[in-house]
Amino acid sequence: MDYQDAFKSAVARVRAEGRYRVFANLRRYRGEFPRARWRTEDGDVRDVTVWCSNDYLGMGQKPCVTESMKGAIDDVGAGAGGTRNISGTTNYHVELERSLADLHQKQSALLFTSGYIANEATIATLGKILPGLIIYSDALNHASMIEGVRGAKCEKHVFRHNDVEHLEELLRAAPLDAPKLIAFESVYSMDGDIGPIEAICDLANKYNALTYLDEVHAVGLYGLRGGGIAEREGLLDRVDIIEGTLGKAFGVMGGYIAADANIVDAIRSWAPGFIFTTSLAPALAAGARASVEYLKSAHYLREQHQERAKTLMQRMRDADLPVMDSETHIVPLWVGDPVLCKRLSDALLDDHDIYVQPINYPTVPRGSERLRFTPSPAHDDEMFDQLIEALQEVWVRFKARRTA
Amino acid sequence: MDYQDAFKSAVARVRAEGRYRVFANLRRYRGEFPRARWRTEDGDVRDVTVWCSNDYLGMGQKPCVTESMKGAIDDVGAGAGGTRNISGTTNYHVELERSLADLHQKQSALLFTSGYIANEATIATLGKILPGLIIYSDALNHASMIEGVRGAKCEKHVFRHNDVEHLEELLRAAPLDAPKLIAFESVYSMDGDIGPIEAICDLANKYNALTYLDEVHAVGLYGLRGGGIAEREGLLDRVDIIEGTLGKAFGVMGGYIAADANIVDAIRSWAPGFIFTTSLAPALAAGARASVEYLKSAHYLREQHQERAKTLMQRMRDADLPVMDSETHIVPLWVGDPVLCKRLSDALLDDHDIYVQPINYPTVPRGSERLRFTPSPAHDDEMFDQLIEALQEVWVRFKARRTA
Ligand SMILES: Cc1ncc(COP(=O)(O)O)c(C=O)c1O
Ligand SMILES: Cc1ncc(COP(=O)(O)O)c(C=O)c1O
Repeated sequence: MDYQDAFKSAVARVRAEGRYRVFANLRRYRGEFPRARWRTEDGDVRDVTVWCSNDYLGMGQKPCVTESMKGAIDDVGAGAGGTRNISGTTNYHVELERSLADLHQKQSALLFTSGYIANEATIATLGKILPGLIIYSDALNHASMIEGVRGAKCEKHVFRHNDVEHLEELLRAAPLDAPKLIAFESVYSMDGDIGPIEAICDLANKYNALTYLDEVHAVGLYGLRGGGIAEREGLLDRVDIIEGTLGKAFGVMGGYIAADANIVDAIRSWAPGFIFTTSLAPALAAGARASVEYLKSAHYLREQHQERAKTLMQRMRDADLPVMDSETHIVPLWVGDPVLCKRLSDALLDDHDIYVQPINYPTVPRGSERLRFTPSPAHDDEMFDQLIEALQEVWVRFKARRTA
Repeated sequence: MDYQDAFKSAVARVRAEGRYRVFANLRRYRGEFPRARWRTEDGDVRDVTVWCSNDYLGMGQKPCVTESMKGAIDDVGAGAGGTRNISGTTNYHVELERSLADLHQKQSALLFTSGYIANEATIATLGKILPGLIIYSDALNHASMIEGVRGAKCEKHVFRHNDVEHLEELLRAAPLDAPKLIAFESVYSMDGDIGPIEAICDLANKYNALTYLDEVHAVGLYGLRGGGIAEREGLLDRVDIIEGTLGKAFGVMGGYIAADANIVDAIRSWAPGFIFTTSLAPALAAGARASVEYLKSAHYLREQHQERAKTLMQRMRDADLPVMDSETHIVPLWVGDPVLCKRLSDALLDDHDIYVQPINYPTVPRGSERLRFTPSPAHDDEMFDQLIEALQEVWVRFKARRTA
């Protein structure tokens, strides 16, 4: 076994598919979002507009958030210094969990170091706590849920994306009293469509299943207080476990679940990904709490955000650009080829100071490569003009497709 | 299936074993480490001395660390706003990775959101990149490595803790050209003993295996620049992959691997736990880098730290307390029963203002419950006096064992 060869060829496979990732080295400047400085590989520095941040509302730059973080650092220092159980629980954690439970109108919430590990650890642990569990997982579920399902080591069925009939067919085939979990998302972040939460909850009732909903791309952004799509649709009490992140609309970092107290206590007591890791830095918890609380009442930001997304989609349609159907704030532009996708992205950055990352496999299925835009309330009309003009230029230059 | 019952009984099992965890709500005060305020469940607040923090050197309170974090927040805001690939790479990340590669004298390093996910994602991914991989895992490896091994879905063998002969027996039984990985730790954090790195590397050479070393409880603490036990023993170039955390001796949060460029590039390109998650908040990266760089030259702190640990062990021995053999800074005191362990810990907190968490299953094997002390350079002789006196009192009161 030649290990060097093996590692090189693992990377070569990625390169051969045109999806080798070169990270763009960015430096945002607080208060100037979505402008940032981009450092090229040669060390040059240029001003660019960021069009693909998941800090959807620019909360990561809001003084109430940054000052809370700095305050916590002044008060208690840098890290938590331990796992939640061994000296790593602070009032910041306790209060943030309360704030998140309230956001989702659940009895309890539980913090994780990321949304990724929240999904993975919770789903895997449900498989251990509920013997004989059968998991039903949407075909487009995020990698972190897929890893959780794998870790659960139980029977699993993948239902066609958002296809309630297929889901019912699969549920019907299992014994009624077998424990079941339906895992799905509200906002699917690469297409911008929305899961049929109510219909899935109806099925869950009918077939005695638990529901697990990833609202990572919806928390802070939908519902009157930012509780996500489930809040907007009045379904908070019908979903058993809601999972979210503190790293996207809330602008900080970390993840969580919210559910009733027994579920949270069981996960808290059994999930290795919760138990065996240094807890979230107090400053992150403080910043996230400020952000969550701010967004509970800042509905104006959500309205601005929706307006910006709708306007951008309309402008792309008007310009005959292949914008994909999206019901949400996510604006995906179809490309359908990994190499072309990277080329378009490079040209936008090099020639137009526009930063939008190519989205290739494994983030989206092969053949559905795209550019994914996330306009925020801070992206103004002038930036829209520049973007549309730039897109037209590169679309013509590289003869990209006009239909999705 | 009654889900409420299932969750309640999952928790009841933990309670029945006397290992239900009630998190101590602590508030450290910057500059006063290891003193902290403890908030009881009734809301009372009391001053306590923390004896079980993994911020081993108090770096989480060092101005160079906290000011770097605040500076980064002022400059770029709260969160990274994206995954490493999609708008979440900043100069803070790039520079920290360079600093860590240098620390371990490797070509590259790769950041993760925690040491837990660094272990899990890297080991699981090696199983995917190296078809036919056989993993050899020390029996006392940390939960995060165990989860990684599970995720690798390949043949695995557990060798008796630190038992090189057993390891060789297992290696010998496999085809010489099969790809192999030996996963182990340097400092085992619950016993304080050290893995036989050189002997394991020798075996790795002989049987053509890769070595994966978790130095989570050694980075910052051992070696002339804080590169860990492998540095101290002159073995940095013999270990293929070194894994560490930013959340213990470095006092912040996050994890990483350091290895040659091909390995890092392959993991970077293939590991879901690296790819599909919001990157480390820039402030954490900034603080961690300040800490890593500070500790590269602050050998005096490591010397103080070792002196404190040795002194505490001696004082416990002198007091006829059942301190377990430890070769490191970790000072475990044998109890051997989960209920008694919790009782001792509660009495120390309630009656002596001393906070040391009971260490029960699953953190240590059943029947080996203990109190685990981590004296830092900031724990002074007076605190030692108080601790020993308090331990004597509770040991007598609860008739705890005198031998380990
Ligand atoms: C749907 C979904 N779930 C979970 C996650 C993970 O959240 P985090 O970035 O907090 O790890 C992401 C993205 O990163 C996501 O897109
Ligand atoms: C040996 C070992 N490895 C890895 C980890 C995980 O590191 P982190 O706390 O950064 O997740 C820990 C403790 O938390 C540990 O003790």
